[in-house]
Amino acid sequence: MKAVVYRMRVPFYDVDSMRVVYHGNYAKYFEEARCAYFEACGLSYGDMEEVGFLLPVVSLEIRYVRPCVFGQELEITVRREENDNLLVLRYDIRDAKTGERCCRGTTRHAAVDAERRELLFELPPPFLARLKEAEKA
Amino acid sequence: MKAVVYRMRVPFYDVDSMRVVYHGNYAKYFEEARCAYFEACGLSYGDMEEVGFLLPVVSLEIRYVRPCVFGQELEITVRREENDNLLVLRYDIRDAKTGERCCRGTTRHAAVDAERRELLFELPPPFLARLKEAEKA
Amino acid sequence: MKAVVYRMRVPFYDVDSMRVVYHGNYAKYFEEARCAYFEACGLSYGDMEEVGFLLPVVSLEIRYVRPCVFGQELEITVRREENDNLLVLRYDIRDAKTGERCCRGTTRHAAVDAERRELLFELPPPFLARLKEAEKA
Amino acid sequence: MKAVVYRMRVPFYDVDSMRVVYHGNYAKYFEEARCAYFEACGLSYGDMEEVGFLLPVVSLEIRYVRPCVFGQELEITVRREENDNLLVLRYDIRDAKTGERCCRGTTRHAAVDAERRELLFELPPPFLARLKEAEKA
Repeated sequence: MKAVVYRMRVPFYDVDSMRVVYHGNYAKYFEEARCAYFEACGLSYGDMEEVGFLLPVVSLEIRYVRPCVFGQELEITVRREENDNLLVLRYDIRDAKTGERCCRGTTRHAAVDAERRELLFELPPPFLARLKEAEKA
Repeated sequence: MKAVVYRMRVPFYDVDSMRVVYHGNYAKYFEEARCAYFEACGLSYGDMEEVGFLLPVVSLEIRYVRPCVFGQELEITVRREENDNLLVLRYDIRDAKTGERCCRGTTRHAAVDAERRELLFELPPPFLARLKEAEKA
Repeated sequence: MKAVVYRMRVPFYDVDSMRVVYHGNYAKYFEEARCAYFEACGLSYGDMEEVGFLLPVVSLEIRYVRPCVFGQELEITVRREENDNLLVLRYDIRDAKTGERCCRGTTRHAAVDAERRELLFELPPPFLARLKEAEKA
Repeated sequence: MKAVVYRMRVPFYDVDSMRVVYHGNYAKYFEEARCAYFEACGLSYGDMEEVGFLLPVVSLEIRYVRPCVFGQELEITVRREENDNLLVLRYDIRDAKTGERCCRGTTRHAAVDAERRELLFELPPPFLARLKEAEKA
């Protein structure tokens, strides 16, 4: 897989008084899609923690294109960018029916040693190998 | 103090598409008021954890009286109910200006041994003593 | 259907620093399950608004039985209680694999005229008829 | 004022299972600080809506520097960037005691005609004048 597609539906409680998804909630949608990406690679948050590292978000960027509304079916495509130091994931949220783009975004994640809480300057090689392998499959 | 009063203002992101506070968000307001109550008793969540117990919520009840809107100033009064086994807190949310009641609620908390994760059938006596003392002051 | 079963999975962002679902988030899970219940009755929030009434929550009760964790699969069963004045829904959240109960709750909803924002003392008869019909099917 | 400083304290429910503020929640902190900025300019969200325009977020960027924890006091400094077409706000979140930087971010907002929901290619002149005046004072 070159990309993972995650489908979801906008819940009532994510919509603000303008009747559109509150802009801060897209960070949660990216997170759900990211979990789906890891699962597609045969990994889980728990696995990584056991292996001894965490992947905190070091930056988040979101461009809002079209507002989303309650009940709307969304399709989030997640792709990893070639990078051996940071995990860089790109998200593209589109209406599941029309295919119209609603939102794009990026998260960057650094690997951190879970015990010593120290920054690792590259992604753990076995982890990176697993992602690359899954992407080739 | 017989009761603690916590003041807050409704943020934009807590309001739903009906332009009123989403009903689930009052649990957060109760939590903020509860923290203010513990502080008024000279306690913090961290203190309790260090002393070796947690106070998870075992039940929550909310009655909605009047909807609250973005920017509204609220006053939450917290009172403990006489009870040696559970921590029972009553919340009364009113408009800070008019005094009109918006919402009432109750949370019940059991003490749990932090290490063994076992239920304690009564509140730790030094903790209870501290609450009673603060309430008399 | 006498009851509707809604399945979900606990997202990372709903878990608090105790590594269990934050107690206030169950209100959102009930809401998702409630939407599934309405859909099973052939209704949507939008339909009701068009027909001219809203169903705000007038009370919420939650009993917490077992904590839920990130990634856990949950099954929420929603049942309506016999009542012609208020919509009373009962929720039962269980682990989807073991069937162990995690949480129970109730929401009560009054019908409100969407335009005049006035309380209706009984559920709109065509609405109630639709629920009863769906429950018999 | 060249900048507005908003003070807040991290609530329990914003902290995730790593015991630090969930990265998506900083969007809410920016929003609270933005409201404080508008108030310092003598404006409110309601005012703007009445005057006939909205300011939806068109992009959000966050750089995470140091994690924030439950109970931490934060100071958010908001500054507007010189720009007549978009409202561009910069946020700097620091520990209120140590002054250490926790997070930086930017939101960009386009003006939209409230009635026709059409994009305006520059900020409404009286609105921009008000911001500039407040910044000079």
